[in-house]
Amino acid sequence: MTEIGIIAVGGYNEMGRNMTAIRVDEDIIILDMGLRLDRVQIHEDVEIDKMHSLELINMGAIPDDTIMKDVNGNVRAIVCTHGHLDHIGAIPKLAHRYSAPIISTPYTTALIKHQIDSERKFGVKNNLISMKAGETYEITKDVSVEFINTQHSIIDTVFAVIHTPKGAIMYACDFKLDRTPTLGEAPDFNRLKSLGEEGVIALITESTNSGRSGKAPSEQIAHDLVKDVLLGTEESDVGMIITTFASHISRLNSIISFAKEMGRIPILLGRSMDRYMSTAKELGYVDLPGNVEIYGQRREVEKALEKVMRGGKNKYLPIVTGHQGEPGSILIRIANGDLPYIIEPGDKIVFSANVIPNPLTRANRYALETKLRMKGARIYDNVHVSGHAYREDHWELLRMVKPEHVIPAHGTIEMHAAYIEMAEDAGYVLGDTLHLLRNGEELYIEE
Amino acid sequence: MTEIGIIAVGGYNEMGRNMTAIRVDEDIIILDMGLRLDRVQIHEDVEIDKMHSLELINMGAIPDDTIMKDVNGNVRAIVCTHGHLDHIGAIPKLAHRYSAPIISTPYTTALIKHQIDSERKFGVKNNLISMKAGETYEITKDVSVEFINTQHSIIDTVFAVIHTPKGAIMYACDFKLDRTPTLGEAPDFNRLKSLGEEGVIALITESTNSGRSGKAPSEQIAHDLVKDVLLGTEESDVGMIITTFASHISRLNSIISFAKEMGRIPILLGRSMDRYMSTAKELGYVDLPGNVEIYGQRREVEKALEKVMRGGKNKYLPIVTGHQGEPGSILIRIANGDLPYIIEPGDKIVFSANVIPNPLTRANRYALETKLRMKGARIYDNVHVSGHAYREDHWELLRMVKPEHVIPAHGTIEMHAAYIEMAEDAGYVLGDTLHLLRNGEELYIEE
Amino acid sequence: MTEIGIIAVGGYNEMGRNMTAIRVDEDIIILDMGLRLDRVQIHEDVEIDKMHSLELINMGAIPDDTIMKDVNGNVRAIVCTHGHLDHIGAIPKLAHRYSAPIISTPYTTALIKHQIDSERKFGVKNNLISMKAGETYEITKDVSVEFINTQHSIIDTVFAVIHTPKGAIMYACDFKLDRTPTLGEAPDFNRLKSLGEEGVIALITESTNSGRSGKAPSEQIAHDLVKDVLLGTEESDVGMIITTFASHISRLNSIISFAKEMGRIPILLGRSMDRYMSTAKELGYVDLPGNVEIYGQRREVEKALEKVMRGGKNKYLPIVTGHQGEPGSILIRIANGDLPYIIEPGDKIVFSANVIPNPLTRANRYALETKLRMKGARIYDNVHVSGHAYREDHWELLRMVKPEHVIPAHGTIEMHAAYIEMAEDAGYVLGDTLHLLRNGEELYIEE
Amino acid sequence: MTEIGIIAVGGYNEMGRNMTAIRVDEDIIILDMGLRLDRVQIHEDVEIDKMHSLELINMGAIPDDTIMKDVNGNVRAIVCTHGHLDHIGAIPKLAHRYSAPIISTPYTTALIKHQIDSERKFGVKNNLISMKAGETYEITKDVSVEFINTQHSIIDTVFAVIHTPKGAIMYACDFKLDRTPTLGEAPDFNRLKSLGEEGVIALITESTNSGRSGKAPSEQIAHDLVKDVLLGTEESDVGMIITTFASHISRLNSIISFAKEMGRIPILLGRSMDRYMSTAKELGYVDLPGNVEIYGQRREVEKALEKVMRGGKNKYLPIVTGHQGEPGSILIRIANGDLPYIIEPGDKIVFSANVIPNPLTRANRYALETKLRMKGARIYDNVHVSGHAYREDHWELLRMVKPEHVIPAHGTIEMHAAYIEMAEDAGYVLGDTLHLLRNGEELYIEE
Repeated sequence: MTEIGIIAVGGYNEMGRNMTAIRVDEDIIILDMGLRLDRVQIHEDVEIDKMHSLELINMGAIPDDTIMKDVNGNVRAIVCTHGHLDHIGAIPKLAHRYSAPIISTPYTTALIKHQIDSERKFGVKNNLISMKAGETYEITKDVSVEFINTQHSIIDTVFAVIHTPKGAIMYACDFKLDRTPTLGEAPDFNRLKSLGEEGVIALITESTNSGRSGKAPSEQIAHDLVKDVLLGTEESDVGMIITTFASHISRLNSIISFAKEMGRIPILLGRSMDRYMSTAKELGYVDLPGNVEIYGQRREVEKALEKVMRGGKNKYLPIVTGHQGEPGSILIRIANGDLPYIIEPGDKIVFSANVIPNPLTRANRYALETKLRMKGARIYDNVHVSGHAYREDHWELLRMVKPEHVIPAHGTIEMHAAYIEMAEDAGYVLGDTLHLLRNGEELYIEE
Repeated sequence: MTEIGIIAVGGYNEMGRNMTAIRVDEDIIILDMGLRLDRVQIHEDVEIDKMHSLELINMGAIPDDTIMKDVNGNVRAIVCTHGHLDHIGAIPKLAHRYSAPIISTPYTTALIKHQIDSERKFGVKNNLISMKAGETYEITKDVSVEFINTQHSIIDTVFAVIHTPKGAIMYACDFKLDRTPTLGEAPDFNRLKSLGEEGVIALITESTNSGRSGKAPSEQIAHDLVKDVLLGTEESDVGMIITTFASHISRLNSIISFAKEMGRIPILLGRSMDRYMSTAKELGYVDLPGNVEIYGQRREVEKALEKVMRGGKNKYLPIVTGHQGEPGSILIRIANGDLPYIIEPGDKIVFSANVIPNPLTRANRYALETKLRMKGARIYDNVHVSGHAYREDHWELLRMVKPEHVIPAHGTIEMHAAYIEMAEDAGYVLGDTLHLLRNGEELYIEE
Repeated sequence: MTEIGIIAVGGYNEMGRNMTAIRVDEDIIILDMGLRLDRVQIHEDVEIDKMHSLELINMGAIPDDTIMKDVNGNVRAIVCTHGHLDHIGAIPKLAHRYSAPIISTPYTTALIKHQIDSERKFGVKNNLISMKAGETYEITKDVSVEFINTQHSIIDTVFAVIHTPKGAIMYACDFKLDRTPTLGEAPDFNRLKSLGEEGVIALITESTNSGRSGKAPSEQIAHDLVKDVLLGTEESDVGMIITTFASHISRLNSIISFAKEMGRIPILLGRSMDRYMSTAKELGYVDLPGNVEIYGQRREVEKALEKVMRGGKNKYLPIVTGHQGEPGSILIRIANGDLPYIIEPGDKIVFSANVIPNPLTRANRYALETKLRMKGARIYDNVHVSGHAYREDHWELLRMVKPEHVIPAHGTIEMHAAYIEMAEDAGYVLGDTLHLLRNGEELYIEE
Repeated sequence: MTEIGIIAVGGYNEMGRNMTAIRVDEDIIILDMGLRLDRVQIHEDVEIDKMHSLELINMGAIPDDTIMKDVNGNVRAIVCTHGHLDHIGAIPKLAHRYSAPIISTPYTTALIKHQIDSERKFGVKNNLISMKAGETYEITKDVSVEFINTQHSIIDTVFAVIHTPKGAIMYACDFKLDRTPTLGEAPDFNRLKSLGEEGVIALITESTNSGRSGKAPSEQIAHDLVKDVLLGTEESDVGMIITTFASHISRLNSIISFAKEMGRIPILLGRSMDRYMSTAKELGYVDLPGNVEIYGQRREVEKALEKVMRGGKNKYLPIVTGHQGEPGSILIRIANGDLPYIIEPGDKIVFSANVIPNPLTRANRYALETKLRMKGARIYDNVHVSGHAYREDHWELLRMVKPEHVIPAHGTIEMHAAYIEMAEDAGYVLGDTLHLLRNGEELYIEE
C-alpha cells in the first residue's frame, strides 16, 4: 500500500508564499516556493535579497518550510508551475536546503535563474530542469511529473501532474480556462479529460476567484478593451501612456500591436519590463516588430523620455511599470516629475491592470492617481481581465478531472470557503473527499 | 433677443421619470416623458394602466408636469430619443394634455404606439411622427429638431438637437460612444464635431455612469462574453437558458446567432420579448434566421417548453424574460415550477444583464437565483456591458460639442456631482456655465 | 470508553434552522430546532403552519433531521437555549418525531407552547420542562443538562451544558458577554470559569459576529442611544413612533421607561408585540408602569390609533412591529395609509433595530422607508446594538472555558472561517481540536 | 443697501483646507484657515514647516487665497472656531498676508500660537485675540463676531456668528449637538433659538456627516464603550494600550478616569499628546489626577516604557499616539520594536478612533494592525463615536436657526449633495435659498 501525504506548507492561510509538498511514501515533490510581497511591504527599508530565510519566515513572507523536517521522506524535486513571484520568489531563500532539481517550463526556468542570480544572501545551486507543456519527467522510478498546458496571466503556465503507482495528483495553481488566448494555446482539454478517465487521486487547486460567479473572461476581452481605449478616441493626438504587469507578455504583445495601428512607436520602460519581455523575446515566445524599444536602465529611460518629449508625445506609446503605484516605478516617477515626461491636461493614462486588493497597493495607487489627475491626466482604469479561474471554470475542471479528493489552495480561508461550497454542489463532502488544509498540516491519503 | 429656458421637469432628482422642456421664447419642446418603475414597485397590487396621472405624480412615478402651467409658452412638440420606459412610459398619462405631435425614430414610435394602445385610463391622440437619425423636422419656422445617430442598449437611439435662431441645444439622454456596435451604426462623430463648430448653446446630458472611470466597453465585448459562455464549455449537452433585456435587440441578435453555432434552436419566450423583437423584425432592424421561434402568449410558452422537454433540452436555447427576477416573467415561473421546463443539476442559466441597483430588484433576483441554485443550476451572472457612457466618454462628447452651458440630467444628485467634477476638469464653472438643476426648476439662458 | 458524537443537523451551512445533536454513547440530546425564515420568504403565499415537515426540509427552511435515523442512539431530550424562531421555530414540525421532553427556561417554554398551539399540521405532545438558569436536569443517570445564565437579545437566554461521565459539552448559541445588561443578570462568569476548571470536552458556539473586531457593545449602549433619540430633541412636540424586535423585552422595557420621561403614554401595537410582552409580564420578567397599553388584535390597534389621533400624537409613543418592513406589520400598514395614524412632515420614526442583511428584508425596509420619507417622516435608523458576541468576546469565552474541542455553529462558512482564525490565535488546530462541520456531518470524539 | 458676499475659499470641494470669507460691503471676515493633510501625505519627504504657501496651494494642501485679491474689500479679522488642523493649520502660511487679528477661543488660541511658533518659513505676527463662548467682539462699528458654545471632538469649539447691520451670518463648521457631553457644556440651544428669532441671513455649515441617518451619538456613548472595553474583561492582567486623537481632550479625560478604576497609572505618550493635554491642563479645561504622567520627548518616552516593563505592564495604562498608524507615532514604533514595550500574545490594543477614510491612512493602519496581530495582540477597533453632526442634527439646527440662505461647506460635493437633499426636505430651494458653492466662488446676497 502506498501512502500519500499532501503537506500544506504555505499559501493555504493567505495569498502569496505558495508551497505544497506531496509525499509518495518517502519521496517528496515540492510544488512552488513563493513570496508574499505585502508582508514585506508593511516594513520600511527592507531589502529582501540580503535577508535570511528565518527572518522572512517570521515575517510571514515566505513559506515556513521548517515543518518539512517532521515529514518522513526526502525531497526529490521542486516543481514550479509558472514564473510569478508568489510561486518562485522564495526559491533563492529555501531551495538550497534541498538536494533536488527545480523543474519548470522554459520561461519559468529563465525567471528562476534571474531570481537566483539576484540573491545576495544564499547561493542556490540546485539543478534547473526545463520542460515543456506536454512532456513528462521521471523523478524516481515510481514517480514522474507531467506538465499540461494551461493559460494564466503569464506565458508558459502549466498544470503539474504527479504520477504515482496509485494514480495521479494534479496541481492546478494558477490557471484560467481560456479558449481564445491571445498568445499560446488553449488549455489541453483532451489531456485533462483523459487524465480524468485514468483516475486522479487528488486535485490541489487555487481557490482565488472561486467566489466570483460565472467564468473568467478570456484574455481576448482584455485585448479588445485595451484596443478600444487606445484607438477608439476622437482625441488621438494627446500624450498616452499605458501600464500593465511586466510579466503579462500576452497583454504586452497586444499593446505593442496596437501601437502599430496607432502609428506610434512602442517603448517599454522599466527594469522589470525589460527583464520579462527581453527574456520572452530571447526564448522565442514573442515576435516583436522592429520598431519596439525596450529600456530598463535608469539613464536609458531618461534618454528615451527626452526623445519622446522632443519628437512629440503623440508619436510614441510608452508602456511602463507602475500600475500599482509602486515606489520607484516609471509611472510614479513621471507623476512625481522625476522623469523628463511632462503630463499635460488631456493626456491619457491607461491602467491595464486591476488594483491589487490590499491597503498598501490601494494607497500607492491613490497617491499615483491623485498626482496624475492634478496634472490633468485622464485615467482609464481596470482595462483588464483576471488571469484566475472563476467559479464555473472550477466547476468544469472538477468535472473533467474527477478527482477522488479536492484540496483548495492558494488563498485565504474565505476563498477556500467559496470553493468548498462549489465543490459540495459537485458532490464532494468536506472532511471526506474535500479538505480544508491550513499551513503546516499534512493530509494523509491511503490508496 | 431670444430667451431660452431649460425646464427640469423630471429625472433631475432621480433615475427614471425623465422629462425636460426647452422653451425658445414662447415655443416649448418637451423631451421624453418617462416612468420611474421602482416607485410603482414599492406598492402592492398597483395597476398603472388604470391609474390617473395625478396619483402617479404623487407616487413620484411620472414627471410632475403640473409645473408646466407656470411656464410661459406653448408646447409645440414632444420628442422621445429612444424607446425605454423611463423615456416613453409616461406618454399615456401625460401626452394628451398637450396638443403637439410626438416625434421619434421609427422603432421608438412603434413602442410608443404600443404604450398608448395599452393605456386604459386616458386616450392619447397626439400625432405620431417618425423620423430617422440624420433627419430634421421643422417644428415652427424658427425651431427645428434634428436626430443624430448614437448607440445605447436599445436600437434606434438618437441625440436630439433643437435648433433655434441663436444656436443649438443638444439633448444626450441616453447614449454610449460605441465605435464597434453589433447592430446599427456608430455614433455620428462627424456630425457631432460639425455641430460643435456651428455652436451649441447648451448640452443636456445623462450623468448616470459619469462616476465610472474610463470608457464604457463596446457592445462587442458583451457579444464576445456571451459567446464564450454559451460556446466555451466542455459541458455543452446540458440545458441552457439565457435571459436578457427584451428591448436589447442587438444583444438578442447576437444570442440568436450563437444558437446557430451551438446547433440549437433559439426560442424567444415572454410577452415583452415577443413585442420588442417582433416589432424590430417587422421594421427591418433585424434579419432573423428561419428557425427562430417567438412566443409571447402564456399557452404558447407552455407548449413551446413542453416541446423542448420532449425534444431534448440540449436542442434548444430558450431566450427568456426574467433577468431581474420580475414576478410573472418566464424565468421566475420556471424556477417556481410553474412552467413545464425542468431544471436539473448542471443546467446553465445565463444572465446577460446586470442587477439593477435597487433593493427591490435585488430581492427579486436573490429569490430567483436561490430557487435556481437549489435545483442545481449553474449561474452565469452579469454577462453584460452597460449601455451608458462612462466618464471619459462624457469628457470626449463635451470636447467635441463644446457647449456654452452644460446641464447634467437623468440621474441622482450624486451622479450629477460626478459629472460636475468631470466638467470642471474640462473648464466649466458651476453656477456659470455648468448647472445643477432640480426637478421643477427653470434655467434661463439669454443669448 | 464513552464515545461522543456531535451531529451538525442544521445551521452549520447557513443562518437559521439551527439544530445540533449530541450523542453520548447511545443517548442523544438535541439542541435547538430552528426555522430559517428567509427560505420561506422567497416563496409567495406560503403558510408554514399548514405545511409538512418534508416540504419545509426541501425548502431549506427547517433542519433536515432525516439524517438522525442513521445516528445510533435514542433521543432523550430536546433542549432550547432561548426563544428566537431560529432556535424553536421548527419544534412544531419536528419535535413530535421524538419521544423526549423539551427542556428550556420559563420564558422560552412559554414561547414554545405558543408555537405548538399555532401549528395546524402536526400535534406536538412532548412534555415541556421549564428550568431556570443555574439549575441542572438529569436526563439519564449518566447525562444531565445545566443552564448557565447569559445575555442575548431576548430574555432568559442560557448556555446549555451537557454533563457526561467524561466531561462537559457546552452549547453557546447565541450569547453576548454583557456586563451591564438592562434586564436580567450578567453572564455567570464564575460558573464559566469553574466549568473551565472542571474540564470541557467540546464547545459548540455561534460564529455569527466572530468577524467583527472588538467586543459587542452592551445593551446599556442601546438604552442610551434610544434615550438620546427620544428625549434629546428640540422638536419634542411631533409625532414619534418607535419600532423594535417584539421579542427584545429589555429594549422594550427601556423604551417604556423613556415614554414616562417624555410625558407620553406608551402603546405597544402588533400581534407579536402583544404575545412576547404579555408573556414576559405574566411570568414576571418585567414590571410595567400602569399606563402602558398593549394591543395585538387588528380592531384594537385601529381603535388605539384613532385615540392617538384624537388625543394628540404628542401624547403617545406607539411602540410597533415592522422594523424590517414586514408585510402586515403595524408600521408598513401605517406607511401604506391602512391604519388611522397620519404621518406628517417632521414626525420621527425610530428604528431600534438593524436591517437584517438579506435582500428580501432590505427590499421591505427600502419600500417602508421610501413611503415614510415621502410623507415627510424623519428616520432614525439603527438605534441598536447587536445581541451576538464579537471576536474578542469569543476569545474570552474560549479562554475561560478552555474546551478541548471547538465547533463553530450557527452561521455560514464565512462566519465559521472568521471564528477559526480567532480560535487558531488561541492555539486551536483545525482538523485536530477545531472542527468545521457541515450540515449532516457527525464528529466523533473519543474520551 | 448692504451687500453681503460669501466667498468659498477652501474646503468646499474637499475635506480639509477650510477657509471661508464673509464680505459685508467692504469689510471681510475670514473664517478658518485649514490644512489638508492627505494632500501632503501623498508626497514623500515633505516638510511643511519649511514650504512656501504657493507651493502648498499648488499641492492642494492649503486654501487658494490668491482669489482674495479679486474680492473688493479689506480683511478685518480672522476667526477660527476650533483648534483642529483643518481649521487652523494654514495660519502659519497665510495669516501674515492680512493685517487682521486672529480671534478664537482660549484653547484654540493656544494651539494657534503653537502653530505659529513651529513655522520656519514665515513669521506670523497677527494679533491673537482670545474670546470665550458667549462673548462678542466688535470688529468694526457695524460688524461683530459672537461665539456660541457647541460640542465637537475638541474642547472649546464654537459656532461663530457674524452680526451685520442686516442680520446675522452663522458659521457652523464643525459641531455636534451633544446634550450629554463628558466635558464642557451642551450647545447653547437657547441662544440658537433666540438667534433664529432675531433673523439669520445665512448659515454656512459643515456637511461632513449629513449623509448619515439619524443623529450623532453623544460622547457619553464613547465614554461607556471605552469603559466597557477597558474594565469589562476577565483578562485584566494583560498589557493594555489605548490610542486616541491627541486633541480629543474629553476622550482622554474619560480614559484617565478609567485608569483609576482599573488600578493602573495612566501615562500619556507622544509629542502631540503632550502638547494638547498639557495645554488643556494649563488653561484649566481638565483637572487631572495626581498620578497621571505625560511624556512627549523621545527619550522620556523610552524611559517611561522601560519603567512600565520593569514595573509590570498590568500596572500602567499607556495612552499613546498612533491611532492611524502614523509613521513616527508611539504605537507604530512599539509595533516595529523600536520602543522598549514588548507586546505579548493576549495584550489588548484599544483604538478609540475610527480609521480616517483615506487610502493612505488605511494603509498605515493596516500595516500597524498586521504587525500588532503578528505579535499576538488583541485589537479593539473603533471604540469611538463621531464628532460631526448627522442628518437629523442638521435638520434640527436648520429649524432652530431658520436661516434665509444655507450653504453647505467642509466637505466633498457628495457630502454637500446629502445636505442639499435634507435641506430640500426642510423647504429650501437649490439655487434660490440653498447654495452649492465651489472653491473660488463668491455668493452675493443683497439685503
